Amino acid sequence: MSEQASKGAGTRVESDSIGEIEVPADAYWGAQTQRSLQNFRIGGERMPTPVVRALGIQKLAAARANMKLGVLESDIGDAICKAAQEVVDGALDDHFPLVVWQTGSGTQSNMNANEVIAGRANEMLSGKRGGKSPVHPNDHCNMGQSSNDTFPTVMHIAAVLLLAGETVPKLRALQGEFETKAAAFESIIKIGRTHLMDATPLTLGQEFSAYAKQLEYGVERIEAALPRLRQLAQGGTAVGTGLNSTDGFAETFADEVSAITGEMFVTAENKFEALAAHDAVVEASGALNVVATSLMKIANDIRLMGSGPRCGFGELLLPANEPGSSIMPGKVNPTQCEAVTMVCAQVMGNHTTATVAGSNGHFELNVFKPVMIYSLLQSAKLIGDAAESFNTNCVAGIEANEQRINQLMRDSLMLVTALNPHIGYDNAAKVAKKAYAENTTLKEAAVELGLLTEAQFEEWVRPEEMLGPRKRQ
Amino acid sequence: MSEQASKGAGTRVESDSIGEIEVPADAYWGAQTQRSLQNFRIGGERMPTPVVRALGIQKLAAARANMKLGVLESDIGDAICKAAQEVVDGALDDHFPLVVWQTGSGTQSNMNANEVIAGRANEMLSGKRGGKSPVHPNDHCNMGQSSNDTFPTVMHIAAVLLLAGETVPKLRALQGEFETKAAAFESIIKIGRTHLMDATPLTLGQEFSAYAKQLEYGVERIEAALPRLRQLAQGGTAVGTGLNSTDGFAETFADEVSAITGEMFVTAENKFEALAAHDAVVEASGALNVVATSLMKIANDIRLMGSGPRCGFGELLLPANEPGSSIMPGKVNPTQCEAVTMVCAQVMGNHTTATVAGSNGHFELNVFKPVMIYSLLQSAKLIGDAAESFNTNCVAGIEANEQRINQLMRDSLMLVTALNPHIGYDNAAKVAKKAYAENTTLKEAAVELGLLTEAQFEEWVRPEEMLGPRKRQ
Amino acid sequence: MSEQASKGAGTRVESDSIGEIEVPADAYWGAQTQRSLQNFRIGGERMPTPVVRALGIQKLAAARANMKLGVLESDIGDAICKAAQEVVDGALDDHFPLVVWQTGSGTQSNMNANEVIAGRANEMLSGKRGGKSPVHPNDHCNMGQSSNDTFPTVMHIAAVLLLAGETVPKLRALQGEFETKAAAFESIIKIGRTHLMDATPLTLGQEFSAYAKQLEYGVERIEAALPRLRQLAQGGTAVGTGLNSTDGFAETFADEVSAITGEMFVTAENKFEALAAHDAVVEASGALNVVATSLMKIANDIRLMGSGPRCGFGELLLPANEPGSSIMPGKVNPTQCEAVTMVCAQVMGNHTTATVAGSNGHFELNVFKPVMIYSLLQSAKLIGDAAESFNTNCVAGIEANEQRINQLMRDSLMLVTALNPHIGYDNAAKVAKKAYAENTTLKEAAVELGLLTEAQFEEWVRPEEMLGPRKRQ
Amino acid sequence: MSEQASKGAGTRVESDSIGEIEVPADAYWGAQTQRSLQNFRIGGERMPTPVVRALGIQKLAAARANMKLGVLESDIGDAICKAAQEVVDGALDDHFPLVVWQTGSGTQSNMNANEVIAGRANEMLSGKRGGKSPVHPNDHCNMGQSSNDTFPTVMHIAAVLLLAGETVPKLRALQGEFETKAAAFESIIKIGRTHLMDATPLTLGQEFSAYAKQLEYGVERIEAALPRLRQLAQGGTAVGTGLNSTDGFAETFADEVSAITGEMFVTAENKFEALAAHDAVVEASGALNVVATSLMKIANDIRLMGSGPRCGFGELLLPANEPGSSIMPGKVNPTQCEAVTMVCAQVMGNHTTATVAGSNGHFELNVFKPVMIYSLLQSAKLIGDAAESFNTNCVAGIEANEQRINQLMRDSLMLVTALNPHIGYDNAAKVAKKAYAENTTLKEAAVELGLLTEAQFEEWVRPEEMLGPRKRQ
Repeated sequence: MSEQASKGAGTRVESDSIGEIEVPADAYWGAQTQRSLQNFRIGGERMPTPVVRALGIQKLAAARANMKLGVLESDIGDAICKAAQEVVDGALDDHFPLVVWQTGSGTQSNMNANEVIAGRANEMLSGKRGGKSPVHPNDHCNMGQSSNDTFPTVMHIAAVLLLAGETVPKLRALQGEFETKAAAFESIIKIGRTHLMDATPLTLGQEFSAYAKQLEYGVERIEAALPRLRQLAQGGTAVGTGLNSTDGFAETFADEVSAITGEMFVTAENKFEALAAHDAVVEASGALNVVATSLMKIANDIRLMGSGPRCGFGELLLPANEPGSSIMPGKVNPTQCEAVTMVCAQVMGNHTTATVAGSNGHFELNVFKPVMIYSLLQSAKLIGDAAESFNTNCVAGIEANEQRINQLMRDSLMLVTALNPHIGYDNAAKVAKKAYAENTTLKEAAVELGLLTEAQFEEWVRPEEMLGPRKRQ
Repeated sequence: MSEQASKGAGTRVESDSIGEIEVPADAYWGAQTQRSLQNFRIGGERMPTPVVRALGIQKLAAARANMKLGVLESDIGDAICKAAQEVVDGALDDHFPLVVWQTGSGTQSNMNANEVIAGRANEMLSGKRGGKSPVHPNDHCNMGQSSNDTFPTVMHIAAVLLLAGETVPKLRALQGEFETKAAAFESIIKIGRTHLMDATPLTLGQEFSAYAKQLEYGVERIEAALPRLRQLAQGGTAVGTGLNSTDGFAETFADEVSAITGEMFVTAENKFEALAAHDAVVEASGALNVVATSLMKIANDIRLMGSGPRCGFGELLLPANEPGSSIMPGKVNPTQCEAVTMVCAQVMGNHTTATVAGSNGHFELNVFKPVMIYSLLQSAKLIGDAAESFNTNCVAGIEANEQRINQLMRDSLMLVTALNPHIGYDNAAKVAKKAYAENTTLKEAAVELGLLTEAQFEEWVRPEEMLGPRKRQ
Repeated sequence: MSEQASKGAGTRVESDSIGEIEVPADAYWGAQTQRSLQNFRIGGERMPTPVVRALGIQKLAAARANMKLGVLESDIGDAICKAAQEVVDGALDDHFPLVVWQTGSGTQSNMNANEVIAGRANEMLSGKRGGKSPVHPNDHCNMGQSSNDTFPTVMHIAAVLLLAGETVPKLRALQGEFETKAAAFESIIKIGRTHLMDATPLTLGQEFSAYAKQLEYGVERIEAALPRLRQLAQGGTAVGTGLNSTDGFAETFADEVSAITGEMFVTAENKFEALAAHDAVVEASGALNVVATSLMKIANDIRLMGSGPRCGFGELLLPANEPGSSIMPGKVNPTQCEAVTMVCAQVMGNHTTATVAGSNGHFELNVFKPVMIYSLLQSAKLIGDAAESFNTNCVAGIEANEQRINQLMRDSLMLVTALNPHIGYDNAAKVAKKAYAENTTLKEAAVELGLLTEAQFEEWVRPEEMLGPRKRQ
Repeated sequence: MSEQASKGAGTRVESDSIGEIEVPADAYWGAQTQRSLQNFRIGGERMPTPVVRALGIQKLAAARANMKLGVLESDIGDAICKAAQEVVDGALDDHFPLVVWQTGSGTQSNMNANEVIAGRANEMLSGKRGGKSPVHPNDHCNMGQSSNDTFPTVMHIAAVLLLAGETVPKLRALQGEFETKAAAFESIIKIGRTHLMDATPLTLGQEFSAYAKQLEYGVERIEAALPRLRQLAQGGTAVGTGLNSTDGFAETFADEVSAITGEMFVTAENKFEALAAHDAVVEASGALNVVATSLMKIANDIRLMGSGPRCGFGELLLPANEPGSSIMPGKVNPTQCEAVTMVCAQVMGNHTTATVAGSNGHFELNVFKPVMIYSLLQSAKLIGDAAESFNTNCVAGIEANEQRINQLMRDSLMLVTALNPHIGYDNAAKVAKKAYAENTTLKEAAVELGLLTEAQFEEWVRPEEMLGPRKRQ
């Protein structure tokens, strides 16, 4: 429901402490939402859907808690719960038209939720959409709450649900695929490369095991950040003291959210910290930033190993999902790697945003809340989706070009390293240099230099025995 | 037109070099667009609208240039021009469903444009939507072009149009408003603050003149980046050589784009650089990053000076656009400052994204093109919109709280600085410390210390004479 | 020992696989160190001292492990141990002249250690400084090692020792001081501020408790990153396979390092990951980045609350450690806050560096090792030192300006929030607006509006009862 | 001269407005420098030498200007000039022991200069080192100045001298070398690579011409930032008004600095902006950030093209400056590329630092001055030095491996692109795919498919004619 489209359908009058204002007749929202629409014509990035849904969860849990504590009458409370559930279910997404670039406390989105839920509850109770009676946006929907504790609560709920529910499982799946590949490739011996230069051999499986391990740690990093995101600010109200909330509300509320979502949440240990700082968001963003560095490295490796088909490394064959070029016929490109690395660049940038925003709180409130959660959720979503797309459309279909791999490995001069324990580093260096200069094999060079016999070379230089430490005698 | 929605309307078969694929019957796009939709289910950020429109401009200019050069028949060319104009006009926006997170060359969006324009042109010529005949997406719409020169061309066109057409004028308007305020406030003497501590006085007008100057330089910085954005890669085709384009195409094309847009564009001096690096995008992003640091400082100052109403600095009265709190009645907050500073955080993050992406090109192609232009355009749009919103909804309505300003200024101990030339720094320090310790006035302290007479103090300490250098005798 | 200074003392000839080269006669280093000095005249940032010392630890542990495994003769091994211990003790710091901007594997610093230790061991054994006999830099000092596993091992050792040994304790001390202050200030009721605007009251102790909590979490964040830093790459040798090391070396080595340092270290789970990626460094840098956002917020709050003395918030009195101005006599500035926030900006920038560097590894080796450890160690050192300086020179000496705090709190209009449960949000808003507009007290405004009696106001609006949730009846 | 070392030599007593303090007897500095040493034990990064020298220039120019304006007696002024000249010449570097992490205005470094110059001038005039008579650090050395205008002035002087004097010339030299190489390689036809995949051919000279062009633009970008750095804040004194300076001082001072340095400087257009914001520093840092993205790309390309020697791209031969591995004999690595790319990562991080610092000014003063200039100067120095080292030790010695280049080019399937105008994109795609699948040549595949004759293939597919647009008939 766009502002314009709605206007065509006529308007009704709503009011707030500033005065009266016309809102679209078919909108559930009220005066404060409408004011925000008009005062913040900046960009087009709407408050992310996971935040909208989490606002539904938050209002539902708050109403339940207030009823349990005996401060909210059940007829009002039940109507709020029904309307809030519709928000949770996504049925009212169109009634959350506000952009990210609004008040830094997210107050307008909180009021958007209060107004929509009151407006829908009033419709259910009275047949009349909108308004403040019998259900009042502030006095009932926002009972014992402030935007200042509500919005950070919603940020944490949305972040945990997305990270634990999507990002982590998709990363785990990708990790699993790399483990599968590591096993499948465990006997393919290939040239190692350090400084991009030929080095001693390893197996392709060993290479892929590193990618799996990076992702395993990535999941650990995200999960290490979750405990502090599972703490909810609710109950702090305006400045962290909990003024105007009811004793026990904070704890009861957290229990309700846990029950609704199936994820564990607790009330924040220190509500002042929970309103004034969003270090937990910066921390989670930082975990995703590490995952981005991992994925950037992995995707780069894979496209480099897949480079060619004839003039590159050519060790891997990547799935050909689409034509690669509008001018070069038959070209196939590592497009999934490209999407992944672009996502990584975005996540790194988002982390700068989160850091700058997180460092600029003042006194009892950080007022960069919307941009912080926008950036964290975008990163979480993109990392998850990119992992899944990469997995399905690329990694799962990777094949080793064994012939090419074997040929390169056999050509390598760095097999000479196996000679170190036998003829010493300095002599081995001479062998490698001679072979390179004269374009011969290592064996030829070593024998010519009189450092060993052909038989010794055959015995000492065996790629398959260069894949691990020397056994002790 | 969402992928899903379209499917309801039936499908038709399109094909590319990979094979056949079903596309929504009512879509103008073809096989490669459809493949991208299916292969890149990542996030939901569509290729920005300014890029879509610029693709229309680019295809229009290319068709015109090819006709002028005699390599494109006019019946085909004219149909392409008509269809491309519809893209320019925004009539076909719904037919560009691809996300940013696709191939890093933007090939799929280029093919999206080729397919939609061919599909629409074919409909105009044959009554049948889509397909490759009589107008072929590659052979005609992409004639003498490659995604590799087309997409960076489109990036530059979109960036220049947005920066020169929106961002700069909106920043200039804000600069103008600050100049207006600087003039209006030129005789209001207030306490200066350095290190956040009371310092010597200046006028409120002088303070606002700094904001105007920051914006003036901001515009200069953006404009300094434009010349390199006005260079177009078109004509480089696949790797920068121009293979398969026609001699003169690059120059003719740039002229056509200039004619279509009314902005000056030229062909890039070095096409290899233009495809392989997007330093010009990083540079423009850097200019916006400086503007973000300026706006962050300005918005912070204004909200600090507006803090209160009773327990803060309280020197400025900001417009009250909406209720400020869902729990604290009557509270009004500097919400426009908050939106502005959130935008600044986003722009700084986008700049990290652009930098990382810009540094990761390989050989003949940088394949972070979509994320780079996404991030630059978002920054340009947000800075422009935020400047306009800040201007209209905040700065224009700022009033000075003269009574408060005057009271604070009179109380300040740093007026003592005016005594330096008369009694020396060390004595002046004693006066300030005594007045502070004993909570008296500077005059009382100075006289008590026997450093001057009351009359001398009156003569020497005049705030209105502390606003500029000492005149030479 | 500078390159120049040393040259004055004459030279001797050393050699490597490239050939002969003159080195300063009094230097312990050899050919490869000398070559690096000459080939990398970039900046002046030397490899950080903690890395040099950790190289000593690494060579000592490696020699011990090799002796235990029976592959290094004890006369050679003992000499290496003695020389390495001198490196650990800092006696040979001057013999590590290389800069950060060298080979990205840190090979040259590893060879610097090998050469210095061999050179010193040879001096002990033969009386002749330098050379390769009887102790050889590669064959003995680097036995079973590669720069590729040595340098990341050294990175981790240096990082853990600094983070666990300095950064964390200094942060904990600062946390403790904030807790002390929180207790001392627990009964000072003050105005809260959200959006920088007057809000409902809280205690100064509550405010300081948030700072303590931020630091407590900051320590948790750093400690959460340590487990992956405690994993050592040693034993991976050139590409992660462990070629040319002895079976059991990796584990024995880690035990030796644990014994030497008193900190727990283990061998890395996956050596390929340990050489090719430095996600653990990015992660630790990210933890420090969060601490930087915390400290930026805290230091900003404190300097804002200390602003004045007469024209600012004026709620805190910060210690006056030095004259504040070269022109304004008697001025005292929050200089410790400034040093802290500058450190935070540096740490945030270092984190970008670590992220960019960490994402750019290729195949079996990340070659941004020196800049990564340089940036991590600088951040760890600066955060620790800044915390200590801030603690000692500022926080410990902070006093509350109780008179000012009380006056501001009493003046605040946001005490009206206490009326919400009694007269409703909308009426309370009217009271606040009327009092503000007419510059009267809330009580006067409320009574005039007929919303309550004076007695009711006195009963309902009690700041000391606004510091927590409402008790349940 | 370290704090410790100096102490051994005995002490003398100096004083400031805080009181008396002991300073090392042989130090020229006074009380305020000593206080800073004791209060800011943070890290070890001293104020950069270019800042120290620029402080000398600034004090020299100020004394000359004050004498010209008739407000400074010539005996005092002359002594100041002599002492200041010693600072300019570097003779007193050891007497500037303060670290970057001090007061954010740089006041302590300004006072360090005032004290050292007074202390040295007093020694010249009275034979007694230090003190405040006859030359007073504040009243004479700092006459008509404040740290608040002095330090930003010094920042700009130091930045311009380094950027214009070192960074730009070294980048130009590297650009020149790339142009030389572009000419030398102009007839070497090689495979192009887009998406890291084989693409149509270009010359190695064309590839290198892009690098030269990137550097040419890089110099343009730096030079575009200089005009705003050439503006000097001096004359603004404490808050920008110029209080206590003499009319005409600002302009005279700028002329003196121009005369002393040989670089053009002017007085800042708006002194309030010049003290409160350091957007010009962020801007210059941004220009270096773009150069870093350029150099990262270039160095990556070169090490990729040099990868091998046998299992990589192998198209370039880079100079072997040092042994590459402590374990792999004969290995040579692209170490200069590695140093360059590490520098780039550092510069990108420094840019984040500058951005964060630049955005956090308050009111009349930005108090992140030291970290901003530290980061800008480090970036400028590193970019310059890295460019020079890269140039001398790598680029100048690059040779093309023509045999390998030719072989790869001949093998490439993307030569098929030349067939587009003759047989159409779709047919050409079939040829490429068939050749790849069957591991044959393009010619064989095309002829087998019956799309052309062998003679036509020979005529149409000529790499040397694929290097530019088609000539018009």
